[in-house]
This record gives sequence, C-alpha cells and structure tokens, in this order.
Amino acid sequence: MQSKSPYESGLDKNPANYVPLSPLGFLERSARIFPDRISLIHGDQHYTWKETYSRCQQLASALTELGVKRNDTVSIIAPNIPPMYEAHFGVPMTGAVLNTINIRLDADTIAFILEHAESKVLIADSEFSDVVGTALSKLNRDITVIDILDDAVQHGSKVGSMDYETFISQAKSDYFPIQHPESEWDAISLNYTSGTTGNPKGVVYHYRGAYLNALSNALNWKMRPHPIYLWTLPMFHCNGWCFPWTIALLGGTNVCLRRVAANTIFDAIAEYKVTHFCGAPVVLNMVVNASESERKSFYHPVEVMTAAAPPPAVVLEKMEQNGFLMTHVYGLTETYGPAVICEWHQEWDEYDSAKQAQLKSRQGVPYLALAGLEIMDPKTMSSIKADGATMGETMFRGNIVMKGYLKNPNATKEAFDGGWFHSGDLGVMYPDHYIQLKDRSKDIIISGGENISSIEIEDTLFRHPAVMEAAVVALADDKWGEVPCAFVSLKPQHSPQPSEADLIQYCKENMARYKAPKKIVFGQLPKTSTGKVQKFRLRERAELIAKNNAS
Amino acid sequence: MQSKSPYESGLDKNPANYVPLSPLGFLERSARIFPDRISLIHGDQHYTWKETYSRCQQLASALTELGVKRNDTVSIIAPNIPPMYEAHFGVPMTGAVLNTINIRLDADTIAFILEHAESKVLIADSEFSDVVGTALSKLNRDITVIDILDDAVQHGSKVGSMDYETFISQAKSDYFPIQHPESEWDAISLNYTSGTTGNPKGVVYHYRGAYLNALSNALNWKMRPHPIYLWTLPMFHCNGWCFPWTIALLGGTNVCLRRVAANTIFDAIAEYKVTHFCGAPVVLNMVVNASESERKSFYHPVEVMTAAAPPPAVVLEKMEQNGFLMTHVYGLTETYGPAVICEWHQEWDEYDSAKQAQLKSRQGVPYLALAGLEIMDPKTMSSIKADGATMGETMFRGNIVMKGYLKNPNATKEAFDGGWFHSGDLGVMYPDHYIQLKDRSKDIIISGGENISSIEIEDTLFRHPAVMEAAVVALADDKWGEVPCAFVSLKPQHSPQPSEADLIQYCKENMARYKAPKKIVFGQLPKTSTGKVQKFRLRERAELIAKNNAS
Repeated sequence: MQSKSPYESGLDKNPANYVPLSPLGFLERSARIFPDRISLIHGDQHYTWKETYSRCQQLASALTELGVKRNDTVSIIAPNIPPMYEAHFGVPMTGAVLNTINIRLDADTIAFILEHAESKVLIADSEFSDVVGTALSKLNRDITVIDILDDAVQHGSKVGSMDYETFISQAKSDYFPIQHPESEWDAISLNYTSGTTGNPKGVVYHYRGAYLNALSNALNWKMRPHPIYLWTLPMFHCNGWCFPWTIALLGGTNVCLRRVAANTIFDAIAEYKVTHFCGAPVVLNMVVNASESERKSFYHPVEVMTAAAPPPAVVLEKMEQNGFLMTHVYGLTETYGPAVICEWHQEWDEYDSAKQAQLKSRQGVPYLALAGLEIMDPKTMSSIKADGATMGETMFRGNIVMKGYLKNPNATKEAFDGGWFHSGDLGVMYPDHYIQLKDRSKDIIISGGENISSIEIEDTLFRHPAVMEAAVVALADDKWGEVPCAFVSLKPQHSPQPSEADLIQYCKENMARYKAPKKIVFGQLPKTSTGKVQKFRLRERAELIAKNNAS
Repeated sequence: MQSKSPYESGLDKNPANYVPLSPLGFLERSARIFPDRISLIHGDQHYTWKETYSRCQQLASALTELGVKRNDTVSIIAPNIPPMYEAHFGVPMTGAVLNTINIRLDADTIAFILEHAESKVLIADSEFSDVVGTALSKLNRDITVIDILDDAVQHGSKVGSMDYETFISQAKSDYFPIQHPESEWDAISLNYTSGTTGNPKGVVYHYRGAYLNALSNALNWKMRPHPIYLWTLPMFHCNGWCFPWTIALLGGTNVCLRRVAANTIFDAIAEYKVTHFCGAPVVLNMVVNASESERKSFYHPVEVMTAAAPPPAVVLEKMEQNGFLMTHVYGLTETYGPAVICEWHQEWDEYDSAKQAQLKSRQGVPYLALAGLEIMDPKTMSSIKADGATMGETMFRGNIVMKGYLKNPNATKEAFDGGWFHSGDLGVMYPDHYIQLKDRSKDIIISGGENISSIEIEDTLFRHPAVMEAAVVALADDKWGEVPCAFVSLKPQHSPQPSEADLIQYCKENMARYKAPKKIVFGQLPKTSTGKVQKFRLRERAELIAKNNAS
C-alpha cells in the first residue's frame, strides 16, 4: 500500500484560504477604495461607487423581501441604463440568477423566455411596456413586474406593480449582507441565444467564468485603472461581454446610452472623454459613416473592441483612420462573449494600414482564461493543418465556457461532445497559431467542388466605396452545384451607384475570379434583434431566385 | 420535499468547461503567441519564449526519467539565474512540488529543509557547493544532486552526479506533455520561512493561488504587456512574489542578476531598458546610496515595487527623487508574497513629495485576489475601530493564503484560527480603509503603559541625513517598564557623524517626545539570510545593556 503524500494531509480548504471566485467582490473593493469616484453617468444622473454599491444593496434587499432566493431567476428587459447595470450586482447578491432579455425581441419570444427561465420577477423598462404587456398576457402564471420609469422615455405605460426607484428605496435597509455564492460553479446569469431557427437556448454562466472573463477583459485589452467606458454594446448581450464586472474591477466610469447612434456616441466621447467602448460592426459602421453634423472632434486615445460577423477589414481600417484604436475579439454567447483576441505584435506596427487591418481581421489567439482553442475536424476531433487554408470547426475549452444550456441536456451534450465546445464556426489556423473564421458551417459555398468562403467575398465587396453592407449566400446552380449570391445595400449618398455587373467585375479584379459572386441583389438586409444579418432569410430568397432561373 | 432547481441539473463540470487554474498555461500561451520574443537574459545568454518553453520541457522530461512524479519535492538552491526560472515551470510540469532554498542559509538549516521536505532531487548552483556539500553529508539518505555550472562562477566544485545542462540536454525528448494539476488545490511549491527562532516552517502554495497572485501582480501593478523585469528580488523568496509566472503571463523579458549591487542594477537599467523591478528596502538603500561611479543615467520610466519592514517613508521619497516610480505592497510568505497594496489615488498627485511618501508608506488595501483584510482583536476576532490609531492584528482571508504548513497541523490550525490567517503583524486601519503596520506583535514597546511603535521611531531616525539603517527594540527600564533602544548604522561618508545625544534630540524634535529612544547603540545591524534585521539578536544585546544598567 502506498502511503499518503504529506501534501495530501492537513492542508485542506478552510474559510481563511479558500473563497469562491465571484465578480461581486469587485464592487465591494471599488466602493471601499474609491467611494467617491464616479461609477455611472446617465444624462443628468451621476453616481459614485459608494452610491452604486448602496443602490445594488437596496435592490438585493428589496428582492429578498419579495421572497427571491438562491437559484431563482430574475429577468430584466432594459437598454443600457443604471438599473440594468445595478441588476448585474444586485440580483446575484441575493443568490438569484440574472436573466437579461434582448429589447428587440417580439412578445412571443419574451413570453417563451419568461416561461422557460421560470422567472420570479421581471424588471421592465417602460419603453418596452407594450411588447412586455403582450408577453405577460401570454404567460400562464403570475410574475412580479417592476417598471423602470426613466425620464428620457416619453411614451410607455406601466405594466408592473411598482416602479424601480420606489421598489429599491422602500427596502428596509441599504445594508445588505452579500450572499457570496456557495460554490463558484453556481449560476450567475442566464442568456438566451438569438437562434435563427427554433426556440432560443438558455446559456448558463457561472461565477467562476464571470470572474475570470472580467479579469481577462482587463488584462487582454491592457486596460488601465479608471477607464471611462461607453455602453454601446448592449448589456443584455452576453452580460455586455462581462464588462459590467470589468468596469467595477477597475473602478472605472460607466457612461450609459439609451439610444446608440452616431451623434450620441460622438457626443459622449467628446463630453466625458470616453476611453473605451465595444461594438459590433453595425456600431462601427455608424461611426465611420457618420455625417459631418453628427461628428465631434476628440483629441485623446479611444480604444474600441469589436467582434463577430467578422468585421470587414475595411471597416477596421476606416475606424483607425477616424482615430480609434481597434482591438478585434471573437466569441459566442456560450463563451461569455470575447474568448479569442487578435493579440498585436509590436513588429506589425511597421506594416501599412491595409496590411495591419488584414492582420487585425484575423480572430487570433485564446483569451487569457481560455485554456484551449483549436480548429478541428469535428468527425475525428483532431486538429487540422495550421496552414491558413485547411478549414475545420473552431473548438473551445476552458473556464470561460458556459455551464450548459438550461433544461436542455441533449443540446448541452452535443455542444460538449468530445470534451470541447463546438462553436459551429468554420475557420483556419495559421502557422503562427492565429485563427481566422471563414464561415458558419452552413454559410460555406461549395462551387464546382471548391469551398468558397462567403466572408471573403463580403470582405471584398466592403472595400468598394459605394457598398454599405453585404452578405453572401449559396445559390443553387445546375452547372456548379452552388454559386455565390451577394445581397448588397449601397450608400445612398455615393455617386455613381454601381450596377450588378460593376460589382461582379470589382470582385473579379480583387479576389480569385472563380470566387466572385454570380448574382448581386440590391436592397436592405434583414437583421436579427442583435443586428446580425439573417442569412436564413437571404437563403430563402436565393431559393426563389434559383426556382425562377430554373423555370 | 423541495424539487431540485433547474440550475442544479445537467450543468456539470466537464473537460470543455472546467480546467484547473494553473500558471503553467502562461508559459504555453507566451511560447505559442510570442515564440521569438526574448524571455530571459543572463549575461551573454539570451533565450526566446519558444526556447524557454523547450528548456522547461526538457527539464520536466529529464526529471520524469529520474522517477520524479506527482507530489514529490524537487529542491533548488541558486540565485536568480536561468535554471532557477526554468524550475518554476519545469518542476510543476512533472506534477512535483518546487522547493526553493535561500542561498544564505547555513548547512544545518539546508539539511533540515531537505530532510523535512523529503526532497527527491536537489539542483544546486556551484557557488554554494561548499555549504551544500556539508548539508548533504548530514542527511541520512541519498538524494540526486544536479550541479549548475555557471560560467560566471569562478570557484565552487561539483557535488552532484551531473551538471544541469547535460541533465536537461540528455532528456529523451524536448516535447513533454505538461502534467496539468489534477486539482488546482494541488501543491505547486514549498517555501520555508526564515524564522528567527525554532525550525523553519514549510509554507505550501497551491496552483490556484499561484495563478491568481500572478494575475493580481499584473493588474494591481498596472503592468503592460512585455515588461523588462529585473530580478533583484530573490526567486527563492516566496517564489519571487509569483513574478516568474507574471512575467510569463505578460510575455515579458526576465533580466537575471547573479549579484545584486548598486552598479549591476544601474547597468541593467541602462543597458536593457528595465521597466520594472521589486526589492526589499535593503535593495532600495543600495540604489539611493549609490556612489556617482556606480550610477548610470536612464531616461525611461522605471516602476519599483517594494515591501516589508516596512520601508521608511524617506527611502520611498528618495527613490522617487532618483526617478523611480514607487509602489508599496505588503505580504508574508504565507500570502504568496504581496497581498496588500497601497493603491494610489489620482488626487494625491497634488500633495508635496513628503506627504506623498507618507501616504505611500501605508500598506493599503487588499490585492485583487485577496477577499478579506482586517485589523482585529485576536482575542475577540472583531475588527478594531478604523481610526488610524487603535492597534490590532492584521488578518488575511482569501485565495492567496497558503494551504498550510507542511507536516505541521498544529501551526496550521493556529495560523487559521477563527477562519482568518493571523499574520502576527500589528497595525491600524484608517477611516479610508487603508491599513498601516505598526509592528510585529513582539516588537511593540510598552513604556509607562503607552504602546510605542518601534517602526515609527525607525522611520524618524531614517529621516536623519547621516543614518543608514536603524532598528528599535525594547529595553527593560525600572521606571517605565520598557523604553525604546535604537541600534543605528551611520553613513560612513557623512560628516559630521552625529552623537547619541544628537539623534535622541533629533527624535524628540520630530515625533512625540515620550516616544524618543532613551539609548542609541552604533554599529552594523545583524541580518537574516533574507536581509531582514534580526531583532531577536538586538533584544539579546538590549538585555545585556539592561543587566549592566542594573548592576
């Protein structure tokens, strides 16, 4: 019999040397060390960290008095305003799970989420009272609703039993003993994916991942203390990529924005000296295409983090020309938002801006807290060749991968098959270990046996000065099997407006000729509630085109 | 019966979403992303991160071939040279525990440590072959010894069976599959405290704490990527405050120094553009008292982290005058090195330098990964009044507190009594939640019923321009019970040299008169192997003085 190692005896966990990881500690720390620094600005409202901590404690106290307890779900539907920020602390402080709901969803989907999440309480901004009212009428059970009545909202009626400010102010105490999680594996939040088909899936985050991704944001983005952070990214989207917690960690200032538009972004940057913001390409497009009257000058560095889609290289390049410092990240709802970063090399500074933008349009390398990132053949689960050409599925492994999908063991099992999270995104691995996304599995076009990346074509189209947005899908073709079909919206102010033949010719001149789209359709692009192009709708249109071609 | 929460079902840990926290991943990440950046400089030797990773794998591979396995102890006695850095990764990569041994220890203590730690392998720098040879002759068992033969060492003989370079180069493979810890609670290292009495205690660190303190170092010190880090702090001391792992995390450059002296520090700063170093006050004293011929000019910011003793305010002030940017931290071997930081407030920038140095000489607030820091009455375990005056014992709680003392359950239990780690350091809490150390429990002087802080007197003495070092202990006194007795070494070059009466008068003019020392003794101060003043020796001398006074 082997004797026990001395390292395995008398060295156990105890309250002095083991505390579950939790981002709630960031708020406590900033309130204690920087009580009088500005935590949050929303129009005329200014809060300090001491005040924000106190308001979060009031919210937690009021929720507890309502009967909310550990592992209950508290939902909120609101834009980026103070109660939304406070919910990221006040709800978990009670042990409950925070469920943020996308403000652009329809009543049926909202009702589905409230039902599936078994929400005990809904905090709802009055701007959305109509759709919320309809959703509530479809529910088979009662739910406590708290209205947020923001001065900035002109219309909107009350659907709840009490307004948010009254609710938190009547809490018996603004001292609330934080319920630190019993385990860092406990659920902190629940985020529904905006699936393009079927019911949305409920992605569950744990405290450990929220803590670690908040730290990774700060370290990977090289953030200094006290950033001025502008909320252009919705907090309902992957908990704002965990930035509510990161900004508390850094004792920064949250600048809220109810309405994200070119002028409100430039106004905030100029007025509050914003140092950082995050945004999908749709936000970047707003910024680079802003009119002269919407713009304001700024003379300080502004760091911008962008993700997904992926952003066309030309948009990154134009943002840099507009004076923004760009960082490109990639992730999914299932990975707490950003989990991959295009880590910059100093020696790349010497390249010209187009080459830099191209390097920056690669997704990159694992975030600090991500243990593994590979491009694999999902059948064999072996890594593909790191040649920048061989495609495979992007796989994730580590502490910033979700707990799983709520009440959906089959989808959870499938997602984690073989010990890796399957993203469904197709990509390549370069010899320098940087990954680049090529497509969603279902967005690849197979033409004459060749794989054509719809993203590559979109990227080329974006470089045309008249193109505002572009999305490419497969079009059935008798000869080639599939050919690329591009849907394009043009900048209205650009003259001359290019024709279909012009754009096809442009593609042929700027990429491998066989990859050029065979068909261009002009018009507005259909979008999901999070601003992503709905390719399934474009595919439906492409089917109609193919049918017409055949007949 | 209560039904199970949906959050407690089907959302378990699996290899895709749970990976034990480990600082070894930092090395893998930097080697993968920044393979060609310089990782380590030692004289003419320059390694890249790819090479360092490969050498660590070789070390791990060679140790494994020797039979080293999980929970074995591998000891190393060496200054800050490449094998010492490599051991911080190569040893844990095998699953073994790294035990670094202080190079200034005597043979008896080294033998005690090798015996108590049950070391399987000792890696020993030939500069210490004499004392190591003697220590080995006192051991009752055989141990595999590997010699480090550094070109910089002229003397020294071999005591081992093989030299380090041969050992690692004969490893069958430089590809070594890292043994990630089975649990993040596994032991990563073992550090013996340099107790002033009795046998040293073996402080056991876990992977979780090493990971979290390495992250906290980067975030709390606001480090940017790719620092140039000068090794003035010994890596054998609390694993260099976890900085071997922090520098890997940041893809920085380690500048090694076999011999820490004023000229080698200034040379390295000028030659390699060092951006950061850590050092005890003894190192700072070297720097501020450097002669003109030892100095070199530098024109870039150099951040310096210092801890313990605590550093006299005047030394901090002089460092700033010498162009260094000072950060003050505090911790113990039991807290992975730094666990408390004097977090700076921007508004303090407006104070004059003396006031700033005074604020900076407070120990401050919890490190990011430290959950709790309180000043308590150890009898009642309740927090003392935060008035900057009431004294209590400094207590720690969180993930950067040790697992415990190896094979010493009683000392472990005592240290963790009441769910907090008892530091033995006395301090006060200010209303702004910053702590300041006043003394070790046993270093307080009780004179006429008043507590007098020996640190406060030392701080005052340090402000005298002729004083090089000062240490104060209690002297038995018939009238007062105890009175302060100061041991002082003077700067030899300073003229005029002050008398005992001069210094007592100086203290009376610069602090509460009753706190001034009644006795000054001039001469060199006895130091421990880590450069701390051995107050127990001074207390012995004070006893002799008291005896002479009485007779």
